[in-house]
Amino acid sequence: MEQQQIFIQVALHAWNMQVNRAGQFIALLSDEDFLKEIAPGKNRAIYVIGHLVAIHDAMNTILGLGERAHSELDEAFVKNPDKSGFDMQSVSMLKQLWNEVHENLNSRLKQVKPDDWFSRHASMSDEEFIKEPSRNKLSVLLNRTNHLAYHLGQLRLLK
Amino acid sequence: MEQQQIFIQVALHAWNMQVNRAGQFIALLSDEDFLKEIAPGKNRAIYVIGHLVAIHDAMNTILGLGERAHSELDEAFVKNPDKSGFDMQSVSMLKQLWNEVHENLNSRLKQVKPDDWFSRHASMSDEEFIKEPSRNKLSVLLNRTNHLAYHLGQLRLLK
Repeated sequence: MEQQQIFIQVALHAWNMQVNRAGQFIALLSDEDFLKEIAPGKNRAIYVIGHLVAIHDAMNTILGLGERAHSELDEAFVKNPDKSGFDMQSVSMLKQLWNEVHENLNSRLKQVKPDDWFSRHASMSDEEFIKEPSRNKLSVLLNRTNHLAYHLGQLRLLK
Repeated sequence: MEQQQIFIQVALHAWNMQVNRAGQFIALLSDEDFLKEIAPGKNRAIYVIGHLVAIHDAMNTILGLGERAHSELDEAFVKNPDKSGFDMQSVSMLKQLWNEVHENLNSRLKQVKPDDWFSRHASMSDEEFIKEPSRNKLSVLLNRTNHLAYHLGQLRLLK
């Protein structure tokens, strides 16, 4: 196998591992768990989970994979902190969105052509990219994987 | 720049970003903060931080970079859970070890030759590696980066 393919496989494997761990953990949380704070005075689980769904849905746009499907999540889960009074989706809806967004995203991620991982992502100009070729789509995938791990570490404190 | 160099740069950049964020955060924690639990009934900060230093020190061995320097940390911070009664290093010593271990590790990581990132890591046999070439040194780096992000998400709850 070529190094290029191997590296993409390693990066996607790390992403899938975190998504699966988080998905299995979230599926087992009760409605009550969703409303608990991860630590006293901190974000509630529902906020962290809605935040992850929204950010992962937005990966469709930043990676140029196609339209994102759930920008309605941004108000309550990205643009504003927890407990700001915005309407949030129900727990069962968020669990369903978790599955839907990741199934859709992962099927698109598999189709990205090897060279395309090394192209610039959508929030970056051509000029910036010439200066910093390491800020490519692959770097977005690695950053989002770390972002997910960061919040999974917090969610795990619920149990 | 070649793709091979670019993705090694992307992976090292993600690692360094997490190490720097964690290092800056840890440097500002007081002795009292170190003894706080990250959430009620959970690990104390001192345990999580000692754990990260020990695991990162052990990356020297698993990546074949040279001898690790602080296996004395394993008893209290890796092999046993927090509050098991094993002697722990002082806060000032742990802060110093954080810096020492990462300076040493990062200078060695910079010297790894590109192709070597695609070779098997030390906990894997040649036979296993033939079957799964994506379980290479690069995958260890990505996994450790996610592991660090996971625990940094927890440490951040202290503030």
